[in-house]
Amino acid sequence: MDPLEEAQKVLAAQPFSVLLGAEVTEWGEGRATLELAIRDELKQQYGFAHGGVVSYLADNALTYAAGTVMGHVLTVEMKINYMRPAVGERLIARAEVLSSGRTQAVSQCRVYAVKEGVEKLCAAAQGTIARMAREV
Amino acid sequence: MDPLEEAQKVLAAQPFSVLLGAEVTEWGEGRATLELAIRDELKQQYGFAHGGVVSYLADNALTYAAGTVMGHVLTVEMKINYMRPAVGERLIARAEVLSSGRTQAVSQCRVYAVKEGVEKLCAAAQGTIARMAREV
Amino acid sequence: MDPLEEAQKVLAAQPFSVLLGAEVTEWGEGRATLELAIRDELKQQYGFAHGGVVSYLADNALTYAAGTVMGHVLTVEMKINYMRPAVGERLIARAEVLSSGRTQAVSQCRVYAVKEGVEKLCAAAQGTIARMAREV
Amino acid sequence: MDPLEEAQKVLAAQPFSVLLGAEVTEWGEGRATLELAIRDELKQQYGFAHGGVVSYLADNALTYAAGTVMGHVLTVEMKINYMRPAVGERLIARAEVLSSGRTQAVSQCRVYAVKEGVEKLCAAAQGTIARMAREV
Repeated sequence: MDPLEEAQKVLAAQPFSVLLGAEVTEWGEGRATLELAIRDELKQQYGFAHGGVVSYLADNALTYAAGTVMGHVLTVEMKINYMRPAVGERLIARAEVLSSGRTQAVSQCRVYAVKEGVEKLCAAAQGTIARMAREV
Repeated sequence: MDPLEEAQKVLAAQPFSVLLGAEVTEWGEGRATLELAIRDELKQQYGFAHGGVVSYLADNALTYAAGTVMGHVLTVEMKINYMRPAVGERLIARAEVLSSGRTQAVSQCRVYAVKEGVEKLCAAAQGTIARMAREV
Repeated sequence: MDPLEEAQKVLAAQPFSVLLGAEVTEWGEGRATLELAIRDELKQQYGFAHGGVVSYLADNALTYAAGTVMGHVLTVEMKINYMRPAVGERLIARAEVLSSGRTQAVSQCRVYAVKEGVEKLCAAAQGTIARMAREV
Repeated sequence: MDPLEEAQKVLAAQPFSVLLGAEVTEWGEGRATLELAIRDELKQQYGFAHGGVVSYLADNALTYAAGTVMGHVLTVEMKINYMRPAVGERLIARAEVLSSGRTQAVSQCRVYAVKEGVEKLCAAAQGTIARMAREV
């Protein structure tokens, strides 16, 4: 199986990611991109994607990026700045690994909302990802 | 309407909060508690609540706590540490305002997973909440 | 040597902590308190303690608190909210461990500025501290 | 006065920045670079630059970058990941603004330690900077 397909299989094994409709569209060499369609169920009261959806996508992208260099991983912590309402049809989270060691990696991610084909930066995140000592 | 009921009405107006099944169980005087049942759809591949669910609840609790002192608010940024897998039947996020000014507040939140009636701390968050300049 | 004395010895071995004049005034059982006098050299252009001084004290307090339960440690990451100008004669950073495991701990810290004997909360921090694999 | 000179003048007005020996070496169009020499006084017990020095430089660089687009600013909050011991002769913090609005900006920063002419990434930071309502 090619790596991207394998990454999608992992995502498909997470019921919450299936509920949100997330897809991996890039995966490898310290980078990962996750996307989802902003359907009505994912919005807050003002018609934007809920912050929780944005942060879910950022968090997962940070972790998937680290997974390209560390294998089985989990998120230790992350920080996210919401910069603009997530308005549009689609969210794209692009993450990259800044640094990785024996036990941990640091990743950064930018989340874009796509409206009528135009991408706007709506959030930025930074987090720590740990290699799992063993499969849980 | 009593304040808790009003807070629940706001939550019920967020389709994403409805999708996740979140409830406000405390709201007032700088404090807010949000809860949800960990049903299968909210899990990741190892059977725990997905980090995105934990962070959704923490983020919203931070914001609701700030709302008790500032009215209409939105999350500027937040940071979350995942400390233990969120295993059990229920998540409870308890947040409090540390400080609030004319335009912003800082809140902290602890998220507990409840398994067979026993609460375990599984995450801690801290964030900045802004008063909305006007209704969006 | 009693534990507090030992903690002070570690601080005294850090030239930067000596330069800033930091002292440990509490150390044990998941808690640590660090203090310093706000002398002119530690200020920014408006006469407050510089944010870098506040964040130094918060960071070190987070780490010292974790050291009470994990021995030799180092800061993996931290987040700090500055809530009020650090005005006065003295800064006090009180930290506590929220959770600790085999390899990491999570601590929180509040920093107070003391002016004419009155403490005011001026910052709050949260961070991840790692046990050092071996002495460096 | 050219903008870089003006930025250096602001830094020279901060006693703490003078104590640490920080210099602005780039300033304009959403970017700022701050540097300092790692002299013995700025180290911790293992001979590296103290985390507090790294975080001071990161914090100030985040804020100076925001200052290029917003004028008088102050740091609301920041998060820093320490990725590698800051070993060498010099620290360089390069910051850029990701997004700025009427009242706030979000900046990111990478801190490099320079040893024998070779730069190594040792920390990454992300923070929120506010426009000052008025001169303090």
